[in-house]
Amino acid sequence: MEKHILVIPGDGIGPEVTQWGKAVLQYIASTYGHNFTFDEALMGHVAIEATGNPLPDETLEKAKKSDAILFGAVGHAKYDNDPSLKVRPEQGLLKIRKELGLYANLRPILLFDELLHASSIKPAILKGTDILFFRELTGDVYFGEKTRSEDRQTASDLMIYHKYEVERIAHKAYEAARLRNKKLCSVDKANVLESSRLWRETVQEIAKQYPDVQTEHMFIDNAAMQLIKDPKQFDVVLTANLFGDILTDEASQIAGSMGMLASASVGDGTGFFEPIHGSAHDITGKDLANPLASILSTALMLEISFGLKEEAKKIVDTVDKVLKEGFRTNDIADAATNRYKV
Amino acid sequence: MEKHILVIPGDGIGPEVTQWGKAVLQYIASTYGHNFTFDEALMGHVAIEATGNPLPDETLEKAKKSDAILFGAVGHAKYDNDPSLKVRPEQGLLKIRKELGLYANLRPILLFDELLHASSIKPAILKGTDILFFRELTGDVYFGEKTRSEDRQTASDLMIYHKYEVERIAHKAYEAARLRNKKLCSVDKANVLESSRLWRETVQEIAKQYPDVQTEHMFIDNAAMQLIKDPKQFDVVLTANLFGDILTDEASQIAGSMGMLASASVGDGTGFFEPIHGSAHDITGKDLANPLASILSTALMLEISFGLKEEAKKIVDTVDKVLKEGFRTNDIADAATNRYKV
Ligand SMILES: CC(C)[C@H](C(=O)O)[C@@H](O)C(=O)O
Ligand SMILES: CC(C)[C@H](C(=O)O)[C@@H](O)C(=O)O
Repeated sequence: MEKHILVIPGDGIGPEVTQWGKAVLQYIASTYGHNFTFDEALMGHVAIEATGNPLPDETLEKAKKSDAILFGAVGHAKYDNDPSLKVRPEQGLLKIRKELGLYANLRPILLFDELLHASSIKPAILKGTDILFFRELTGDVYFGEKTRSEDRQTASDLMIYHKYEVERIAHKAYEAARLRNKKLCSVDKANVLESSRLWRETVQEIAKQYPDVQTEHMFIDNAAMQLIKDPKQFDVVLTANLFGDILTDEASQIAGSMGMLASASVGDGTGFFEPIHGSAHDITGKDLANPLASILSTALMLEISFGLKEEAKKIVDTVDKVLKEGFRTNDIADAATNRYKV
Repeated sequence: MEKHILVIPGDGIGPEVTQWGKAVLQYIASTYGHNFTFDEALMGHVAIEATGNPLPDETLEKAKKSDAILFGAVGHAKYDNDPSLKVRPEQGLLKIRKELGLYANLRPILLFDELLHASSIKPAILKGTDILFFRELTGDVYFGEKTRSEDRQTASDLMIYHKYEVERIAHKAYEAARLRNKKLCSVDKANVLESSRLWRETVQEIAKQYPDVQTEHMFIDNAAMQLIKDPKQFDVVLTANLFGDILTDEASQIAGSMGMLASASVGDGTGFFEPIHGSAHDITGKDLANPLASILSTALMLEISFGLKEEAKKIVDTVDKVLKEGFRTNDIADAATNRYKV
């Protein structure tokens, strides 16, 4: 198979982790006889430094022409400490999501048995958990109009959804639920928000087309609680952009660490694969970053964008094997059993 | 001391739990020689059924005239299942918060040693956790303008903050931090939201007036993760209405159960005290509801609204004693030690 892959390392630990994702793709190509070619492009703080633009046109063009994108992370303490800066790294990520029509962000909470003890949650609560999040990625308060009054005393962001935005991701989530345990939980705040009421109405309608899938609706506050109390109750979770951002970071504690979770953003065009963790400036350049989220992102790329199931499984199995052999980065080191190699 | 207390039982398990809160207040009055008088009023679904209005004028008048309010919960499955209903129980709660100027919602995460094992989180992670949340309660996407397009295909809610709204709650949170461990973590999503950038700028300014308090800023997604990973890192947490709603429900798993957490809403006038749990229709009328959140709400009332520290401590100590004796409701039953009475 011939494929052209764009690597966007981004900021912070982005370059450190994507180098390993790329190495794994190269290994898969040579082992299975595929021809993967690679290119690289700038995004985020590094792009601002080099070009003044968090998403240079060149990056976007390269992205549109590639068969899949492997992304690292964006963000930098400088902007976090100064909210008044107008040009910001995250704008690059939000813009590429929008431009590529990446409306569905799939975040599987893959729990390796070996890491059952790495979590702050009790192993008995975790064991058997297998959740697939569908986070809407190109709507919501992320993309609604932002305002700042002239006297700078008032600021707003519009939380907005159109029915078709809910429909298209709902279909994707229901189709996935059909291939899994036929359970879907839609998370919203319909008791307070009008956009959530539209969300709930729409999911209720779509649900009728999937009578074989059991649908539940849950408020975001309750969901944030239930996810820790009893994560096994969830199969497919469907939710809006902001709620999905919060819930999936929280859910990383199920998998033991943020450093373990990969995600796939899909929609109208080229698929985009990234760890759910951020740029982590605190550990940048110290060779402490867990590369597994980036490596597992390549498994998602192979399966979802290229249909290479066997190759994807090989990667996941190898991660499992390496964990069984006791190799750990700091974030998943298991103090209890004292297993901590390299 | 003479005080007039309004009880608003509300919906679902509200009446079941507030009856115990009231009983405890009566006990405190007779034991410590205070004169507490009580009245009752409708809010939520029960008020809609009786008057068509989730917050009848009579309730609001009684609320304004009372010295403190003990509230249960609002909400009903009927409205959750039908997002198109125009008059909804939660409107009563939101309106009374706004009308009474209850802009600061204090949610202490009080962890009783006896319940260390009732949580899904490991005891070693929890032990020593003591967090006080300040959730802004009368602004944000809860109160911004809501729209629904004529074709009903688009819906929006305005997430909006004014600087003074951030300032007044920030001062309250910093003052509390001074009396505690002098650490404050402000939670926002300033890398994406303009309203969060205003939030962060404002907290940065206020922080300068409290140089003895150590300030940290954290993104909401990270905070949702850190709260489970390492809850002991937090002391005072200051956040917006929506983020506070989500984080405090999540934090209930630290205390073992939602049924344990009390909250105090304060601001311009009469204080308002309520469990953080909801109406819980699934267990309503089955005598399964945990009354401790309502009982602990009365302790907050005595301390915050009436300045009765000793009486408040008596209530908390008694809850501790009762837990030590092994009494449990279902939600905090400890399977491991098999201690489960009544
Ligand atoms: C960096 C930030 C803009 C981004 C988001 O909020 O979507 C990140 O947290 C994520 O989850 O991919
Ligand atoms: C019932 C609902 C409107 C309310 C809220 O979201 O504020 C509740 O969840 C709470 O936390 O008090």
